Amino acid sequence: MSPISIYGQRQAQLSHALRAARLDALVLNPGPSLVYLTGIGFHLMERPVVAIFIPNTPVCFIIPQLEEAKMQGLSFATQHFLFGEDSNTWGSTYTTGMHAAGLEYGRIGVEAERLRLLELRYLQAGSPAVDFIPIDASLIGLRAIKDAEEITATRKAVEIAQDALAATLPSLKIGVTEREIASELTLQMFRHGCDPELPFGLDVTFGENTANPHAIPGSRTLKNGDLILFDWGACYDGYCSDITRVFSMGKPDAEFVHIAKIVKQANSAARALAAPGILANELDNAARSQIENAGYGQLFRHRTGHGLGMEVHEAPYIVFNNNKPLNAGNIFTIEPGIYLLGRGGIRIEDDVLITENGAETLSSLPRELIEL
Amino acid sequence: MSPISIYGQRQAQLSHALRAARLDALVLNPGPSLVYLTGIGFHLMERPVVAIFIPNTPVCFIIPQLEEAKMQGLSFATQHFLFGEDSNTWGSTYTTGMHAAGLEYGRIGVEAERLRLLELRYLQAGSPAVDFIPIDASLIGLRAIKDAEEITATRKAVEIAQDALAATLPSLKIGVTEREIASELTLQMFRHGCDPELPFGLDVTFGENTANPHAIPGSRTLKNGDLILFDWGACYDGYCSDITRVFSMGKPDAEFVHIAKIVKQANSAARALAAPGILANELDNAARSQIENAGYGQLFRHRTGHGLGMEVHEAPYIVFNNNKPLNAGNIFTIEPGIYLLGRGGIRIEDDVLITENGAETLSSLPRELIEL
Repeated sequence: MSPISIYGQRQAQLSHALRAARLDALVLNPGPSLVYLTGIGFHLMERPVVAIFIPNTPVCFIIPQLEEAKMQGLSFATQHFLFGEDSNTWGSTYTTGMHAAGLEYGRIGVEAERLRLLELRYLQAGSPAVDFIPIDASLIGLRAIKDAEEITATRKAVEIAQDALAATLPSLKIGVTEREIASELTLQMFRHGCDPELPFGLDVTFGENTANPHAIPGSRTLKNGDLILFDWGACYDGYCSDITRVFSMGKPDAEFVHIAKIVKQANSAARALAAPGILANELDNAARSQIENAGYGQLFRHRTGHGLGMEVHEAPYIVFNNNKPLNAGNIFTIEPGIYLLGRGGIRIEDDVLITENGAETLSSLPRELIEL
Repeated sequence: MSPISIYGQRQAQLSHALRAARLDALVLNPGPSLVYLTGIGFHLMERPVVAIFIPNTPVCFIIPQLEEAKMQGLSFATQHFLFGEDSNTWGSTYTTGMHAAGLEYGRIGVEAERLRLLELRYLQAGSPAVDFIPIDASLIGLRAIKDAEEITATRKAVEIAQDALAATLPSLKIGVTEREIASELTLQMFRHGCDPELPFGLDVTFGENTANPHAIPGSRTLKNGDLILFDWGACYDGYCSDITRVFSMGKPDAEFVHIAKIVKQANSAARALAAPGILANELDNAARSQIENAGYGQLFRHRTGHGLGMEVHEAPYIVFNNNKPLNAGNIFTIEPGIYLLGRGGIRIEDDVLITENGAETLSSLPRELIEL
């Protein structure tokens, strides 16, 4: 007897979770959850590709003919329904597929953050009597406990990101643009072994732009006295890292030095508390209270962290309204920040693994505000 | 009087298109259309970010507080509604925003290929009496005619991709994996000036995998007699290129040589016909009939091409059921292929610009099956 593949095991876990949630099936469109459960990567484009998971039933794929080759040599049972290039025929393929899968009625789970109106309309037309239920949390729960291979891949993604940053820092000179440094960092990521796709567009910002937590690198040039913020991450074997560090070009403003110390304390306090059984919002509070006590609470307006895995934002979220306990195998960021709008911001972001007895911080670059 | 910004001009064009379609508004979530109309890039993540465009009304943004800095210094009027980290409050922010925008009733256009169930649920809850109408075609129509700057950026994206491939070819040796070559090509793309984000995961496949039009590079090693397929593209200033070429490692099988000639004829026939006023499906037919006449029609199972711009797949689609005429400023791919399942495939993909008098092929690498 051949051993059950990792995908077979994960599909069995999913069947269990679906029954517990009283769902008849789960429908996924292309994305990390589909890769996690099947190993198959599809492009998320203008064609409505779905896979339907029903307990004890072959996985049902409704896909374009040009993806048929992906149905060969799989380690689990499938049935597939193919549509051609004529979008007028897609609806009938959906109807045929969903009825063959026995889904004329019932409750089907979907990922609200992933499923598009495109797929939803074909699914609803194919089975108008079905209830489509958003189930992000319970599904993502399947991906939140990382196994040994997933942890090894994440360690490597952290190492690649850290090495790439070290190779990029010598390019920081007065007059370079954010964009130039972002391109150099990107190049260094691939030179150091990053997967062909980055987990997110790398953020490199200077000066007042560092006060914008979700800025995009632009034509701003580096000046003396600027803060320099890097928010970057690598992928390795499909697993992400996500780190933030801030540097100063020349001597920093005294208030930047002050808030950098507070943010470092906030980061340390949350990491020191991390352990199995601690609630996610206890970590958020550990970081936040340091910043509030220092009088900057209004300037730390985002959550303390987010899970990290096949996606760069996934469960568990380290946020005040998540009162679920952390478990060994969770990997997430701790990233408190203080943002002086129009002047500059400090954020220190580390990647943390919950272990059997406590936690391990995977990222190791210095957390001080270093003067370049 | 200051000149109207490019975004103001595009918003005015949109207002015109909305009125013509009898729509009261357009709602966009983060993505290329939002960047096209506002210049603002948001991350597409677990928070429901939208912008609402209503003719003659400031653009209405419903966004997280941590994105507030992006509302500063814009060249057009806005109103914005902010939500915090507590997802329990997002619904009321949506209701407030949509009612303030006067959208309690009416018809609102949405992009079905972009809008997720996440945003749709907040929008529907905020304004239950509104009809949400998928309008991809008419919206994308706004982006389908490229101006001089967009054409210049696309030319540069083609040049970067071609130079990066030339720099990658020397790495092709017996025993390398698809993944290694994909990583090298990726690195070369950034070294040659690609934007920090690639338009898509670059496809590099060997041997039987070249028969899978949407394969993903894996651990398959290069052997003598293999076909080697590159489907790759760069981004420059946010505009994409997308090219495919096939090489042979050593002497190719006689049937590979035969189908390579047929595919090259099909590619040439479509490119030769391209001009303003020609229908998209006439180009599809020009390529397809060459392959059908050679007896391989069943093995060319995808459309002949797709538009290219801020997205790597956008209007105009070169497909049998698109009977709309091409216009000067359209940029699209021509990419016929023949796939011998389990053995190997040939596809030749070029990027074509419709000009005032005819067409110009932007990509220029040789189209022969070259033996390495």
